[in-house]
Amino acid sequence: VRARYIIGLEGSIDPTDRGIAYGDGLFETMSLQGGIVQRFELHLERLSSGCDRLELPLPDRVELAQNIARATDGIDRGSLKLILTRGTGPRGYLPPVSPDPTVILLAEPQTEEPASEIHVATLNSRLGENETLAGIKHLNRLEQVLARLELSHLDADEGLMLSTRGVVIGGISRNLFAVFGDSIATPVIDRAGIAGVMRRSVLEQCVELNINANQRELSPQDLHSADELFMTNALVGIQSVTRLDRTEFATHKIASRLRQAIETSGNGRAGHG
Amino acid sequence: VRARYIIGLEGSIDPTDRGIAYGDGLFETMSLQGGIVQRFELHLERLSSGCDRLELPLPDRVELAQNIARATDGIDRGSLKLILTRGTGPRGYLPPVSPDPTVILLAEPQTEEPASEIHVATLNSRLGENETLAGIKHLNRLEQVLARLELSHLDADEGLMLSTRGVVIGGISRNLFAVFGDSIATPVIDRAGIAGVMRRSVLEQCVELNINANQRELSPQDLHSADELFMTNALVGIQSVTRLDRTEFATHKIASRLRQAIETSGNGRAGHG
Repeated sequence: VRARYIIGLEGSIDPTDRGIAYGDGLFETMSLQGGIVQRFELHLERLSSGCDRLELPLPDRVELAQNIARATDGIDRGSLKLILTRGTGPRGYLPPVSPDPTVILLAEPQTEEPASEIHVATLNSRLGENETLAGIKHLNRLEQVLARLELSHLDADEGLMLSTRGVVIGGISRNLFAVFGDSIATPVIDRAGIAGVMRRSVLEQCVELNINANQRELSPQDLHSADELFMTNALVGIQSVTRLDRTEFATHKIASRLRQAIETSGNGRAGHG
Repeated sequence: VRARYIIGLEGSIDPTDRGIAYGDGLFETMSLQGGIVQRFELHLERLSSGCDRLELPLPDRVELAQNIARATDGIDRGSLKLILTRGTGPRGYLPPVSPDPTVILLAEPQTEEPASEIHVATLNSRLGENETLAGIKHLNRLEQVLARLELSHLDADEGLMLSTRGVVIGGISRNLFAVFGDSIATPVIDRAGIAGVMRRSVLEQCVELNINANQRELSPQDLHSADELFMTNALVGIQSVTRLDRTEFATHKIASRLRQAIETSGNGRAGHG
């Protein structure tokens, strides 16, 4: 696989790139701390499973790491966005037999500390269901763009998204966890949603801490009757939901405990880019 | 609206373009005959309704026409692909308040005459349902890419796609019509599918010819019991389906009649690019 690397804002994409034509690719948004990509192995694993699903070639690991080092050079704390597309191709949906993927690497310094508490509003925007695309972080994100537009008119930090079937999937750019008594539930994401890297870390941490956690179908009503809600993504970590629509949540015990555990655990161990 | 035009293969796209990040945009594939874009008004209308749905600015009409003239210069018969994205933006789903859209124009000469008859195979690949995105020709096309990959392993020219609910939507890149006695039906596309320009021309032509045509929900079984099937898109026009899986279709009367009528009618009138 001979990937074409585009590093930073000065690079340019070919107008026939299938990323732009069809959203034919994947992305990862990673946290940079102390100049090091956090949870790099988990991001790479998700990228790899996305490549399997889309029949995309995974870029060479060493070459990828070298280019990430270049892209993040001089940035201590911030984010690294990786976009992988199927590269250029002739007109039409049919992928080239041996595509040369495009890899875009955009790093930027962190401008502000993520909040530890957020307000969430249930959105009218829904997520379509399709098993084939669920879970992976592909580039077809118009549903999220329209949801983010809807959220911009509301007094909230994040939107709660349901699937077209009316079940809870998560935030626009965060996974969701609900605490009921001494157990934790997070929505199944086999028909819609993204298998977040921080979601995985939280589930793994629950095993470590002997907290009962499971993935299951959740209704909006379930959430309003929860004892505690929190949301996660690779950049913000774990954020407590203090309000969902008109329901207030005063308890943030489990979120605090998990946040602390993840910060000091092996899960938080950085992988070099 | 100050659109940035990229004409032909020599242009280059900014790595922060939202077209590549999220598939945040629309496209049109138009037929060029005698150097003139066919059904330009219909393509522009669909583009405009897509812009409304995505809250995207529609490029200035005159400027667009001037750039299309440049892009198609010297090409007599062929295709013109237009991609409209929300342009560049900072990281995150939230669209810029006043985006400067990117318009990519790629014209190419026709290499072969489209077939008048095709074989179709029902695919396992399904289309997710989402009212908000149905009908418009947006850039989130991974479902079509994966469907086209599936088709490449089958002995057929086009794939029949059902929605996740199991109802018929159409081909991967064509709309579908089924003839029952003296009436025509085409799948409703309010939950999945694209409102094809040629589909619209066919429905309008049916009114002219006093043929009873309606949009309704069709099952795969309905298709196998049809008297005649045909498929359409802007580039291939009307193509008779001679085989769907193991069902053969010997009658192509209505397709021939519509093809002839559309070629000689006002519907086929060319609009200047």
